Amino acid sequence: MSELRRDPVIGRWNIIDTESPAGIETFEMEPQVYAGGRCPFCPGSESITPPEIYAVRPPQSPANSAEWQLRVIPNKFPALRIEGDLDRRGLGIFDLSNGIGAHEVIIETPDHQKQMADLSVEELTRVLSAYKARSLDLRGDTRLKYALLFKNFGLSAGASLEHSHSQLIALPIIPKRVQEELKGAQRYMEFRERCVYCDMLGQELQDKERLICENRGFVAYCPFMSSFPFEIMLLPKTHAADYAKQGPESLVDLASLLKETLLRLRSALNNPAYNFIIHTAPIEPREREEYHWHLELIPKLTRIAGFEWGTGFYINPTSPELAAQALRASAV
Amino acid sequence: MSELRRDPVIGRWNIIDTESPAGIETFEMEPQVYAGGRCPFCPGSESITPPEIYAVRPPQSPANSAEWQLRVIPNKFPALRIEGDLDRRGLGIFDLSNGIGAHEVIIETPDHQKQMADLSVEELTRVLSAYKARSLDLRGDTRLKYALLFKNFGLSAGASLEHSHSQLIALPIIPKRVQEELKGAQRYMEFRERCVYCDMLGQELQDKERLICENRGFVAYCPFMSSFPFEIMLLPKTHAADYAKQGPESLVDLASLLKETLLRLRSALNNPAYNFIIHTAPIEPREREEYHWHLELIPKLTRIAGFEWGTGFYINPTSPELAAQALRASAV
Repeated sequence: MSELRRDPVIGRWNIIDTESPAGIETFEMEPQVYAGGRCPFCPGSESITPPEIYAVRPPQSPANSAEWQLRVIPNKFPALRIEGDLDRRGLGIFDLSNGIGAHEVIIETPDHQKQMADLSVEELTRVLSAYKARSLDLRGDTRLKYALLFKNFGLSAGASLEHSHSQLIALPIIPKRVQEELKGAQRYMEFRERCVYCDMLGQELQDKERLICENRGFVAYCPFMSSFPFEIMLLPKTHAADYAKQGPESLVDLASLLKETLLRLRSALNNPAYNFIIHTAPIEPREREEYHWHLELIPKLTRIAGFEWGTGFYINPTSPELAAQALRASAV
Repeated sequence: MSELRRDPVIGRWNIIDTESPAGIETFEMEPQVYAGGRCPFCPGSESITPPEIYAVRPPQSPANSAEWQLRVIPNKFPALRIEGDLDRRGLGIFDLSNGIGAHEVIIETPDHQKQMADLSVEELTRVLSAYKARSLDLRGDTRLKYALLFKNFGLSAGASLEHSHSQLIALPIIPKRVQEELKGAQRYMEFRERCVYCDMLGQELQDKERLICENRGFVAYCPFMSSFPFEIMLLPKTHAADYAKQGPESLVDLASLLKETLLRLRSALNNPAYNFIIHTAPIEPREREEYHWHLELIPKLTRIAGFEWGTGFYINPTSPELAAQALRASAV
């Protein structure tokens, strides 16, 4: 018998196969083979990318020259553009606006061969600090309401270039998914006067069977109501709504636990494609006391089909208990 | 510049590339190659499937014998099982229940070579009537709150077997996505005292540029706020909440327009994988006057990545205006 498990924040019920769970060997991993040719993200290609917005480079090294450790550039094929007016308007029954926003690429390392999991804790801290710096900088633009930080790794997870990179898309509206989390967290706060994420963390720490690893500041676990096989949550132990308000120590802790998690995932599942997303509070003057930022990591192992489109629920063939066990046992 | 367009029902904003839209040639179509071996859905394989629940066969032909035109069987590997108690319960902060429900397979034709688009209008009407009959039958089970009818076509859209089939999953809860549509339709009804789907249809008929085809009872169009390239909506012209309350004439009209739409899609996009889902009212005593059932068809042309997981919004590289134009121009 499978189980139906409910997400306490957004109310989504997933079907989880706890009876005859799919083991690691059952996933058809798509090959992640990229075409050759000149990589626009490698040192020496600076002239073929848009000019950099942010970089970590030695003192006196000029912008857009080749000696850098990290670069942030506008996406050459942006989903949204920073120039222009939003012009929100109606069209008969419909609502629309111009596609205003920011779309930036964080080139995490000059080394084309390195995956994010291969970066040192120091290098990875640099990446996470760039996320923070860019998020803070975009807050100056009052048209923007949300900064989404995410990473697509591997062709089948949507990364069109192989060179290790993440993305930032800043939007003129608070996304639907974020609204759902904010609303769920607020409803729980009104009812219990506690944070739903803190309570979930407490429960996961008590149950133990879904934990992967932890350090001073963060815990990595496979959530009870996981939508996907090997879905992973990285949650700060301290209640905080805003990724960009983290101090330097917290960024080092996150880098260290993210690296460990990525290494475990790579060895447990033979280098799967994945997406990770930082869920953080919107850009707005008020504090979201009820919210708790987190990083969600989803390996690309299953396909979305009619059931998922029709219900908004997911069928997860691997229980989080089994996934966490495999991740705990895998090499770092 | 792209456009942000809002779904008037569920409030989702999609980013639609109206500036340099992706043409048909840019989609990487995954090959739909199935392994060989004995097909469990072909005539003669009845003994290796679970016993049939419903069938269209000649008079005097015994159940589970080989002379049939259509069969409905329980899924051999069901996501949910019909036997047992729901036993909804808490587990610390979490909610869960047993995986109770129904999971049935509608084998649409005995002919392994035929795709749904190849079925005659009469054969397709038989399929749509089976959907109706099974939906009505499951209403007797008071544990069930929703019957989801859907079809996955092609490996990359999640169909694990090649032989043409659809599925029915009946759930003990009203799915999140359905709740969102019901709520949106209700909110609009309270505000405007009209049906949001009827109003959208009126707008699409007036604007014309997103229409594909229509007949006496139904209209097929690419919605203004399409999440996906070549997304198609089939909407009944007459306001009605419940798929299963359609009369026989309406089923023939739907079969005829669905066949035309599938043929246009196959020729426009070189036989793409797709999902379709019937969105209909929940199983409950009250009438949902505010709702309007519909069929949503999504060809599998793009990948879901970090942006979509993080926001609940979609980036659609092909405007519905362009898609509808291509579908209108394609051969039937």
